[in-house]
Parts: sequence; structure tokens; C-alpha cells
Amino acid sequence: MRSLYLRGVRVLICPDKFAGTLTASEVAAAVAAGWRESAPADELIERPLSDGGPGFVEVLATALGGRRLAADTVDPLGRPTRGEVLLVGTTAYVESAQACGLHLLEIEERDPKITTSYGLGLLLAAAVEAGATEIVVGLGGSAVNDAGAGMLAALGAAPIDQSGYALPYGGLVLGTAAGLGGRPQLRQVSLVAATDVDSPLLGIHGASNVYGPQKGASREDVLLLDAALEHFSGVLEKAFDLEGLAARPGAGAAGGIGAALLALGGRVVSGIGLVTAAIGLEAELDAADLVITGEGSFDHQSLRGKVAAGIANGARDRGVPCVVLAGRNETGYREAASAGVTETYALVEHFGSVEQALAEPARGLREVSARLARQWSR
Amino acid sequence: MRSLYLRGVRVLICPDKFAGTLTASEVAAAVAAGWRESAPADELIERPLSDGGPGFVEVLATALGGRRLAADTVDPLGRPTRGEVLLVGTTAYVESAQACGLHLLEIEERDPKITTSYGLGLLLAAAVEAGATEIVVGLGGSAVNDAGAGMLAALGAAPIDQSGYALPYGGLVLGTAAGLGGRPQLRQVSLVAATDVDSPLLGIHGASNVYGPQKGASREDVLLLDAALEHFSGVLEKAFDLEGLAARPGAGAAGGIGAALLALGGRVVSGIGLVTAAIGLEAELDAADLVITGEGSFDHQSLRGKVAAGIANGARDRGVPCVVLAGRNETGYREAASAGVTETYALVEHFGSVEQALAEPARGLREVSARLARQWSR
Repeated sequence: MRSLYLRGVRVLICPDKFAGTLTASEVAAAVAAGWRESAPADELIERPLSDGGPGFVEVLATALGGRRLAADTVDPLGRPTRGEVLLVGTTAYVESAQACGLHLLEIEERDPKITTSYGLGLLLAAAVEAGATEIVVGLGGSAVNDAGAGMLAALGAAPIDQSGYALPYGGLVLGTAAGLGGRPQLRQVSLVAATDVDSPLLGIHGASNVYGPQKGASREDVLLLDAALEHFSGVLEKAFDLEGLAARPGAGAAGGIGAALLALGGRVVSGIGLVTAAIGLEAELDAADLVITGEGSFDHQSLRGKVAAGIANGARDRGVPCVVLAGRNETGYREAASAGVTETYALVEHFGSVEQALAEPARGLREVSARLARQWSR
Repeated sequence: MRSLYLRGVRVLICPDKFAGTLTASEVAAAVAAGWRESAPADELIERPLSDGGPGFVEVLATALGGRRLAADTVDPLGRPTRGEVLLVGTTAYVESAQACGLHLLEIEERDPKITTSYGLGLLLAAAVEAGATEIVVGLGGSAVNDAGAGMLAALGAAPIDQSGYALPYGGLVLGTAAGLGGRPQLRQVSLVAATDVDSPLLGIHGASNVYGPQKGASREDVLLLDAALEHFSGVLEKAFDLEGLAARPGAGAAGGIGAALLALGGRVVSGIGLVTAAIGLEAELDAADLVITGEGSFDHQSLRGKVAAGIANGARDRGVPCVVLAGRNETGYREAASAGVTETYALVEHFGSVEQALAEPARGLREVSARLARQWSR
């Protein structure tokens, strides 16, 4: 840590996304713009973060370089959309949200009974064809609940019924699966699931129960989907000669895509851990005078292992002050302080209105950051 | 023909559907209800017709009996819906419109780039599993333009790209097909396409150009889809060792499902011919004092081989008067008369408004029919 009273201050800006409004890169850019208005001489280091969800590939591309290859894929309802494969050496990074993301659907289109991870299979296929020997799949922010069945179908291993016919898209129909119609065309590639969701596939802590409702599932849908996925996990276990698949941590990530990646021999790693390592966050923390992080909703969950808590802990270990900028703050001063957070600012308080905080988050961040710079950068 | 002046008159009511508003059965029921109000003693024979499009299975089930088996399937966007298989002996009848019908989509959902015939494949699978040795597939009224690719996928023969990965739903992506991923699971069943569309698959008289726009295709979409289907017809020819597939009459029916059925060794028959034979229409015409037919739009096309013209010709051959009830009448008196039509009544004239004719077609038909009965049944 360098002294705050030397010109210029070195500010590390490493926010998560504001889910539903801004990507992590947009948050970082808004904070930097506001700071620069008040303190143009300061050194600003933008390191947007991702836990595997939306922005995963963008963040890694900025940090790692490599080649970004455009790839045709489909959205959760099978409509054409564009995704990309980030190829760094022979490791490919793909982001499930580009094909399966909840943000790709209108509210009224959300229905995890029928949404599919097929498009993620197309991204994996593109990565294999690009020559990857390892594929890291960012998981999070998905609209699907099909245990990766669509992904498997795109790879040539469609779920089939007891008569050998292929099943259509979606999680609900998996209750009738009797097997897979082929072997997945992945050559010798190894798979990594990058996620900070460590839920199991099934039950009250599983994919359908915890994440189904925000994806559009009714109470009845949740029960039907949980039963369908329970049946399908048995199919996966039989097809890949496994046991205990559904209970493995991360099996429930991204509507059960985690389970399918595990069945394919993949391993689960922390998404935020992978990203912070890739962007060299440790060294940046060492060199920072001030750290600014943030996320859309800063709450008790944030203080138990999500992005902001990890950053605040790292800053505290180094004696570097850490400011959290949030859309909404639901933590108390003392609990935030004990996690290493020096100050917290929320857009809802800045604007005095939830609606405006959601409508103009970038302007709010810019204004709060400019005020912060006047306060910290003297 | 019996005398009109005997009690009671025998009226054969054999309309086509009013596309977009009423099924043929609903039209027949409305006409019968109106007639009965004015002439309760008359004998009314309801024989709704179908050319293979919506209502095909219902009409045949009424005429032939047999077993109606419910079958889970999906709509053109992959959403769960219910279809049925009519099993008469070992011949199964299925209706493409139950899975691929344009009526299953909202206007803004129509997009033949991505709609799929997958659900029809599920109906065929259900028919095979029910023990059918022959499947008659009614074609018409579809929202798809995928040359039956989805149907093939559900049967275990998904189109694949050059690397062996399965393609997603829809017609547009077929331009990248390199082959089929398996053999269709149809056992030894023989296939019949029932349709009165004799279009080829490609070109200005083909599926994409003629029917694409009403399914939601833009001008550019039509060109892209026509090119994609041209490529895919080559894939089908190679997979099934055929020549000249795209040019065969009926290949362009139901967005090219005709082509896939032909590729699978199916034959094309007239939908209306099959239905009139099944319901014994010849004998009914022999016994009728008056024939009432009709369709939503009675126009020049109607007089060149569609339902109404066939009925009117049959009635004229027997000296039986034939009345046409239409939503809208665009024929002249003389040309209708020369086709065997005695009188024509249109709902648009009855109501004096297109909007009301579309909003209350059943009431309009009942009122027109009641007036007709007072006039004819004295």
C-alpha cells in the first residue's frame, strides 16, 4: 500500500456485474469515469470480475488476450444468436449465459420446462473444432433447467425415450428419458465448469427448487422439474457408469448443466477464483491505494463468499481500504466493517428511489464515484 | 335426388374449415344449428371436410371410428402440446397441424427460420409404437419451413454439420447440414402424405416463396430459406440415394415436410380425395336433396380444384342444388354457376363488415343458414 497523500492515488476498480442492469465492465467504466471527473491525475486500474455468469468471456479476454472466435449458436428457445469462443493457447473459454442466459428472454418467455442448453453444446462444438484441448465453461445466469440435456443433444448424444426416439428441448420431458442416442463428440477434450454455485442437482437445495422460480417456474413446475431431473440423473449415471452424480457440489449449477459436465468427466472450479487468478488480482491488490468493488445487491449473502467479500478480505489483509458500491445495500455497518469493507454506498440511497437506481445505474455510479474521489483523493 | 317438396328435406352439410376462425366441424355445426331453428323436421347430415390441414384427424375419426390415442408432442417452437394418433386397424392417421400448425403461434411468434417439425416426428413415433404398419400424415396449415428436418431429428436422424454435431431446430440452419446423424426409427412402416398442395420444394413455386410470407418470413428470409432448403434437399438425396426429390409434386407441402416424407419412401395422395372417400361422400351426395358446402374465402382458387369446387361438381353431376357459404365471396355469379354452385352467401355481406365476419363467424353462419332453411325448406 502506498500513501493516499501522494499524487496520484492508485485505485483498483474490480466490481462484479449489477445483475439485470450493467455488466461488470460497464460498472467499472462508470466508476472510472466518475472518479476521473474529480481526480484526473489518479491512476485507475479497471479489473471487472465474473463468477462464471454473464461477462465471463469478456473479462477473461481483457485479462488474457487470446483469440475471440465468433460462433453461431441458439438461445434458450432455439432462436439463432451469436456467441463466442475465447481461445488462449489450446484452452477455450465459453460462457453458458451467451446461449442459455436469462437476459436473452423476455419475462413472459421464461419457462424452464422447455428452455434448452442446446446452444451451449454448439459453443462447445465450436471450441472443439477450433482445436481446444481443454474447455472452461462459465456457468451462471441461466434460463434453463434441463441438466445439460440440450448441450448433450447438440454434441450428438440426444436423450432418447425407451423406443429410441429423440426427446425435444426442455427439462420437463426428461422424465421420459431412457438413455442417450449416441456418444458426445468431444474428442479428447477435458472440461472445466467455472462456477461459485455449489448446489446439488436435486431436492430443496437443488437447481429446480432454488433457481427455478426466478427462471419462470411455478410451484408445480418446480416439483415436476425436480422429478424429471432426478430421473435424468439416473440416466446420466447409467450412460457414463457413475454413482452419486446428483449430489456432487456444482451439479445444480446453471440448471443442472453442472451435472452434465461432471458426467462428461469435467471438474468444478470456483468461477471467481479462476477469474481473479487470470487477471492477477493479488498483485493488483498489493499495488493498490484504494479498492473499489461492488455488486447489484450487497447483502448478507455477499458477505459469505461472493465477489465483494473476497475482495474486501484481500484488501483488509493488506491494510488497503475497500469501498463497496452497490445498487442496494442490505448489510449493517458493523458486519460490513468486520468483513473488511471501509465504506458502502448504494444507488438507492443516492437517488432516493429504487426505480431511478434501476433506470440510471451508470449515471448513479458516475456521480457516487466522483463524490468519492473528491473525498479520498486530496 | 329426392323432391324438395317432400317433408323433410335431406341436407348434406360438408364444409371445409374457415381458416383462422372455425374448424370444419364447427362450421358444419353452426350451419346445422341455424337450419334446425327454421326447419326442425329436416334431416341434416354433417360431413365436415379436410384437405389434410387442421381438422384432418377429427374429420376422419368421426367418419371411420377407430381409436384416438393421445400423444405428447411439441409445437413449432418446441413447447409441449397435445396431439393424437387415430388408429384404424393398423393404419394410423396423424395431422401435422397438431404439432406444426400456424394456429399454435401468436402472430409475433411466427418465424419460419426457427420453427420446427420436430413435434410431427413425435407423433409419427407414437404411431409406430402404437403398432401402425401405415401412417397417413395430413399436411397443411403449417408454421414451419424446415423440410421435415425436425421430424427426422425426433425419429433419430438429426441433421448434422460437417463435424458431426447435431443442428438446432429450424429451416435457416439447414444450409450448414452435411448429413443425417442416424437412420430414422420407423421400422417397416409405410408413409402417405395427404395434401392438396402439389408445389415443388424450391424456387418461385416452392415452399419458401409461396407459403413463407404467411408464416412470418420477410423477403430476405424467403431467399435464405429457399437456399437452405436447396442445400438440405441435396443432403436428403444423398442420405436416401435419390434423385430429383425437390421437384416432385408435394415436396413443398407443409414447409417441405412433403420432401422428407417422400425421401422416407412415402407417397403423396390428395387430402380431400382421401377424406371424401373415407366419409363415403359419393353415397351421401346420391342421397341428398341439397348440399351445403363452404370455406373461409371462396375465390377463383376455390373453383380450381379446392374443396368447394369438388363438392359442387359432384352435386351438379347428380342434379342436386349446391349452396356455398363463405366468409368472403370473391367469385362472380356466372363463374360460380358454371362450376355447379347454385347460390353463394358470404358473411361479409351478411354483416356488412369484415371485422364482424371474422369476430362472429359461427353466429353469422347460423343466421344465414336459418334464412336459407326458410327459403329452401317449404
